[in-house]
Amino acid sequence: MSITEQLQAARAACRALALADTGAKNRLLSAMADALLAAEESILAANAADLAAARGTVPDVMLDRLALSKARIADMAAGMRQVAALPDPVGRVLERRTLDDGLVLEKTAVPMGVIAIIYESRPNVTSDAAALALKSGSACVLRGGKEAFRSNNAIVAALREGVQEAGFAPALVSLVQDTSRDSARALMTASGLVDLLIPRGGAGLIRSCVENATVPCIQTGTGICHIYVDAAADLDMALEILDNAKTSRPSVCNAAEVCLVHRDVAAVFLPMLRRRLVEERKEKGFVPVQLRLDGRAGAIIEGTPAGPADFDTEFLDYILAVAVVDSVQAAEDHIAAHSTGHSEAIVTADTAAAAHFTAAVDSAAVYVNASTRFTDGGQFGLGCEMGISTQKLHARGPMGLAELTSYKYIIRGNGQVR
Amino acid sequence: MSITEQLQAARAACRALALADTGAKNRLLSAMADALLAAEESILAANAADLAAARGTVPDVMLDRLALSKARIADMAAGMRQVAALPDPVGRVLERRTLDDGLVLEKTAVPMGVIAIIYESRPNVTSDAAALALKSGSACVLRGGKEAFRSNNAIVAALREGVQEAGFAPALVSLVQDTSRDSARALMTASGLVDLLIPRGGAGLIRSCVENATVPCIQTGTGICHIYVDAAADLDMALEILDNAKTSRPSVCNAAEVCLVHRDVAAVFLPMLRRRLVEERKEKGFVPVQLRLDGRAGAIIEGTPAGPADFDTEFLDYILAVAVVDSVQAAEDHIAAHSTGHSEAIVTADTAAAAHFTAAVDSAAVYVNASTRFTDGGQFGLGCEMGISTQKLHARGPMGLAELTSYKYIIRGNGQVR
Repeated sequence: MSITEQLQAARAACRALALADTGAKNRLLSAMADALLAAEESILAANAADLAAARGTVPDVMLDRLALSKARIADMAAGMRQVAALPDPVGRVLERRTLDDGLVLEKTAVPMGVIAIIYESRPNVTSDAAALALKSGSACVLRGGKEAFRSNNAIVAALREGVQEAGFAPALVSLVQDTSRDSARALMTASGLVDLLIPRGGAGLIRSCVENATVPCIQTGTGICHIYVDAAADLDMALEILDNAKTSRPSVCNAAEVCLVHRDVAAVFLPMLRRRLVEERKEKGFVPVQLRLDGRAGAIIEGTPAGPADFDTEFLDYILAVAVVDSVQAAEDHIAAHSTGHSEAIVTADTAAAAHFTAAVDSAAVYVNASTRFTDGGQFGLGCEMGISTQKLHARGPMGLAELTSYKYIIRGNGQVR
Repeated sequence: MSITEQLQAARAACRALALADTGAKNRLLSAMADALLAAEESILAANAADLAAARGTVPDVMLDRLALSKARIADMAAGMRQVAALPDPVGRVLERRTLDDGLVLEKTAVPMGVIAIIYESRPNVTSDAAALALKSGSACVLRGGKEAFRSNNAIVAALREGVQEAGFAPALVSLVQDTSRDSARALMTASGLVDLLIPRGGAGLIRSCVENATVPCIQTGTGICHIYVDAAADLDMALEILDNAKTSRPSVCNAAEVCLVHRDVAAVFLPMLRRRLVEERKEKGFVPVQLRLDGRAGAIIEGTPAGPADFDTEFLDYILAVAVVDSVQAAEDHIAAHSTGHSEAIVTADTAAAAHFTAAVDSAAVYVNASTRFTDGGQFGLGCEMGISTQKLHARGPMGLAELTSYKYIIRGNGQVR
């Protein structure tokens, strides 16, 4: 089956799902979770084959992401049941208005239709993405990475059994059988067949989607997040926030990559920062944070001089770029020039500075006196997450079920003409 | 100034506008309207030069669209003042939530940033689009058609005087000086500089944007709108609605292009349709509607047999494609296969048929017992309109000020870490 045929089948199948009520959709997700557990053996066997093929060719951290176990499969099924338990995003009346001529207009949430998802090594994304897409009333066409190909096929086979048992067309969930760049390109350019394309992966994948997609697409993930320590900051609070944002999980997109420090507190704060992130971590046997310092920070503490790219790099590692700035406005200017629009924080006791920063900084999430690590669908109360949008069209920040829907206007009259 | 420099200037200018309060923005629009009226003479002179150059090379209907007068300029200024009077879409708190750890999260409407608009011959779009963009807190970069180049330059020069008088940077409004395809292409691919691209024009322009744009873009306008006359329709009502939707203004996107008739009423309704749209119009000296009939309709009334493209063409003319269908589901299937997702209507007294149609038809506006001609920002109570989106991402149907904004999350804490 070609990708076009696969998308056409998904398109045909999603029309019935769009008409299904909440109970039917929840039973569908529950049947998929049951089928996933029932297929545990075949999924683990496929995963073992993927792992055997990958061993030696990919880094250990990637093998860990790829590996499934009984516990991980149980988590995947539990995740699907959690999505089933969330409120139905479809059918909500977002606005109701009676127009002058007596027409009654309802702006109503509706499914997207066909959602295509291009993702990389983690096979658990397969069931997560399918649950989110189907609960939001859309069919999904999944294109995973080649390392997880056997695992993904086994998972999708199980999910499709569940779909069929629930009385829906299996084409609601399908996996692209070609894992080359060609298939990604085919999804990106399937105008009229894909209503929403979500790339989940590294910067290269996102860039390729932005450059090549002719279908509606949401940029996700890249996060060059900044923590600005203001002149009026509680410096102990600033240190806790910075430590958390940098070191609690450096590989994720909401981790901090850059610290900007107001000149008035730099001489006090930078030595505290160095002591906490470098020396104390060494003493405790943790990986120390490598500091990349601009000239003014380098005049106060020791560290590597920052190179030209260091303020424009998502390190995803124990590395922090540090600069001294003259004012909250200078911090905002720096962020405007270097941020990817994900998450930024100001630490300050000055409400005017905080208000200026939250108004001026144009990112998906802007924090006052809290860590950027909170930018997450679960933390924000969305119950789940398909990714974090760093664009301004449609959805910004964590995307939950509501962000996977569109809307239409339903207008009821009794013969009105214009 | 290159287009890149022009966009960079707009980007720099929009940061101050994003911080402006509602009063300042309204004074800005008012100053622009004043400046437009003050420049009446130079605008009319530029327009006369455009008209002289266009005469003989473009159709008369296009000359009429291009022509300005004192009255039209007064209307343009009045339109800007109406936009000023609308509620400010920026700063609205869309959701407020206190998270478990005491963080207070506010989802807040914010400006897009830089909006690029590619449009065709009507010079009044220049002031309309500028007013909508600036009121929604964004800078705009306008790329009009070459026929209106002198008029657009005169209008933009006036608007920029108004911007400057109001104390903002003139770069908030600018006109691209190159009217070749190259400049349209440059806007479509200015990743990182354009936050939203809106093409307003014919199908060729829209297609080119979809195929080439790497910046976020909203498809507008194309409307192959359907009127379905159900078995349970009040046939007199159906005739009024169809007549209105087809003939009140055939050149606009919300005009009907296709009529689907249930087989049970076809033998009665089709002769009524032919009498009203063809014979009565001839008798009254109006342009008769040309009917393009499928085989079943052609067996009942006279008309041109429909060719293979007739159910997939936006005629924008006194032409109507007509088909007989077996059921409401068959009408929905036809619409799913042939609609552009703009506006469709069912005429019926059967509430179950109406409910099925409104749930199943996946278009921006779905009507029960009313004309598709109501799909319009003004009619829908949005107060204004930047265009009608026929895509599902971000905005669907008429786009007013709210649809020209994005949002961000502002999260306030007192030292929370994760």
